[in-house]
Amino acid sequence: MNIGLHLEQVRLQQPLVHHITNWVTIYDCAQIVKAFGASPVMAHAREEAAEMTREHAGALVLNIGTLTADVIESMLLAGRAANDKGVPVVLDACGTGATRYRNRETMRLLDKLKINILKGNASEIAFVAGQKVKTKGVDAGAVAGDPAATAAGLAHERACTVVITGKQDVAAGPDGRVYRVDNGHALMTRVVGTGCMAASVIGTFAAVGENGAEAAAAGLACYGIAAELAAAKAKAPGTFKTLLFDRVSDLTPRRADKLARITS
Amino acid sequence: MNIGLHLEQVRLQQPLVHHITNWVTIYDCAQIVKAFGASPVMAHAREEAAEMTREHAGALVLNIGTLTADVIESMLLAGRAANDKGVPVVLDACGTGATRYRNRETMRLLDKLKINILKGNASEIAFVAGQKVKTKGVDAGAVAGDPAATAAGLAHERACTVVITGKQDVAAGPDGRVYRVDNGHALMTRVVGTGCMAASVIGTFAAVGENGAEAAAAGLACYGIAAELAAAKAKAPGTFKTLLFDRVSDLTPRRADKLARITS
Amino acid sequence: MNIGLHLEQVRLQQPLVHHITNWVTIYDCAQIVKAFGASPVMAHAREEAAEMTREHAGALVLNIGTLTADVIESMLLAGRAANDKGVPVVLDACGTGATRYRNRETMRLLDKLKINILKGNASEIAFVAGQKVKTKGVDAGAVAGDPAATAAGLAHERACTVVITGKQDVAAGPDGRVYRVDNGHALMTRVVGTGCMAASVIGTFAAVGENGAEAAAAGLACYGIAAELAAAKAKAPGTFKTLLFDRVSDLTPRRADKLARITS
Repeated sequence: MNIGLHLEQVRLQQPLVHHITNWVTIYDCAQIVKAFGASPVMAHAREEAAEMTREHAGALVLNIGTLTADVIESMLLAGRAANDKGVPVVLDACGTGATRYRNRETMRLLDKLKINILKGNASEIAFVAGQKVKTKGVDAGAVAGDPAATAAGLAHERACTVVITGKQDVAAGPDGRVYRVDNGHALMTRVVGTGCMAASVIGTFAAVGENGAEAAAAGLACYGIAAELAAAKAKAPGTFKTLLFDRVSDLTPRRADKLARITS
Repeated sequence: MNIGLHLEQVRLQQPLVHHITNWVTIYDCAQIVKAFGASPVMAHAREEAAEMTREHAGALVLNIGTLTADVIESMLLAGRAANDKGVPVVLDACGTGATRYRNRETMRLLDKLKINILKGNASEIAFVAGQKVKTKGVDAGAVAGDPAATAAGLAHERACTVVITGKQDVAAGPDGRVYRVDNGHALMTRVVGTGCMAASVIGTFAAVGENGAEAAAAGLACYGIAAELAAAKAKAPGTFKTLLFDRVSDLTPRRADKLARITS
Repeated sequence: MNIGLHLEQVRLQQPLVHHITNWVTIYDCAQIVKAFGASPVMAHAREEAAEMTREHAGALVLNIGTLTADVIESMLLAGRAANDKGVPVVLDACGTGATRYRNRETMRLLDKLKINILKGNASEIAFVAGQKVKTKGVDAGAVAGDPAATAAGLAHERACTVVITGKQDVAAGPDGRVYRVDNGHALMTRVVGTGCMAASVIGTFAAVGENGAEAAAAGLACYGIAAELAAAKAKAPGTFKTLLFDRVSDLTPRRADKLARITS
């Protein structure tokens, strides 16, 4: 896969990535999209969520991190508009497994919308896949089994791309193709929002790519490379996060190609 | 115009700048006010929005970036309280032009309240001025015509100050006076929130100035100078944003006077 | 008191600290918890606020900075769940004294819930204690009298721990014990969110400590030490905040013990 080409297309097309997301990391989701050279927008009012999607969006990112009933309603409205227009929809199942409400609403979004790319950490995706898991809040819990197998199984069952983020990211397409991304750095786990930003990155690359799993893998590789470069200069989370935005912003397609560690 | 005097007054009077704003950049709006030495508050509950304005505010900043019906209602309550007390009201028409809901609510705020300073990027203000524009989300779209002429025309028509931010910022008063501010740096366009922060800066300076257009120009010059100083040390958006707050914080009136590039 | 032991327990137990908090500093509240090595979660929907608390939380932090009726309702639901399970509840009386709505809701939370640790700045706590104070928004106003005496009196009256943050932080337990923490740095007052983060730090340490006042003092000492170390390298608020997260993250129990300045 040509990672640099994906990055080049993001920079060239500057897609608008619409988000209905959580209130904790909403800024970082916007900034990571902007740092990649694309254009973020966050419009969650039920009166405009669908129109913003229909008229302007190259991708729609839904994140249930701080879900409420009205936000879910807007997600459904925007999601239907995206489905109608063929705009890719990314769902970050943030915190799924932690409460019954979160579980129920996640499944409702998956059932009522065509989710093109479902993304979560190991325990969130394991929950959606029907495995017994112990989730503690929004951080990944311990999960038995191979993430790639879980992702591939769920991708087949749900006929969508499934991404599991972690030390190794996995992106499994409905066609059985599985990408493994080894870029990234342990400091990412010390910064709130790196998981949510991963979903925004996936949306950004999905907006310009044909194949969801490939686009997700390309985006996560670029994001992970930027994290590696940031971690080369920063040893602690505050400075690391600042430099992460810097390195995403100045990552060149050539460098992305050179440093990407993707297997499929 | 004596820019340094405006900055001095902000530091001396430390006005409380009340915001009803969006959930993406709310922190940055607060922090830029704080960095200038003033005091931000954000209280959007309908039960207290008016009282907070009436009892404490030196200025009220309204930003429709993530508007919803309840937030608009609180804006109207707070705005009326501000109007009654003669507290300047700044409206950031964030994203206007992107959806019919956003357009309608912007015009409603303009019609139901006395907005003292209307602020937007070129495409947002062009929309309010009745020009045909193509807006893509919250980033500025291409607009025909001279911003200064658009701002001056709308300022006359609406009898308020109109600010258009961009490579050159323009602040046009209802009296026909137009200020052009050439401070600022291209890195600002790589950071989410620099537009929203500009409105907060305008509110901060309007709280201590007599003339809206002059206050807006003074504030934007100081903000732009800080951006220039930050960009002298930072080449990418993460570090740039961190240093922007640093340089706003330690900007002296003398240095502001020296580096300001305002024409009128 | 052995500060290092408290910090060690946070790192070891990694408690989940549930927040129902304001929209301005919500990210920083999460990140400071994460930087200390614990796990933040923010789930304010009425449908899950109680379950998240009951099933997962080591502490519950309530912050009324941008209170609305629905958020207060969720605070009551989560607070009752915490009370039932014996999970410590921290209330940050953010902005109390500024509006009648804020005053009323603060007193209602104090009356309807068992608040284990009430935290505020001098003017907020003075207001709750029934003193006449002049509050301007969310920044501390001038208050007559000794904070330690105010805190101790209110702690006795309300049978809870009372924390007043300021140049010297004070933590008074219902048993009459008063801790004074002299760690910290003036740059904290130049950064929006340092007060809200203090409440999150208190929650983090209360989740692993037996005694509320002692845990609060230990947490505030660690937080203040990190601020001192950050301020040794940063002279302005942007860089300072970045380094504050860095120094919280790499603070060792040994260093915490050595640099803590607590008297009781």
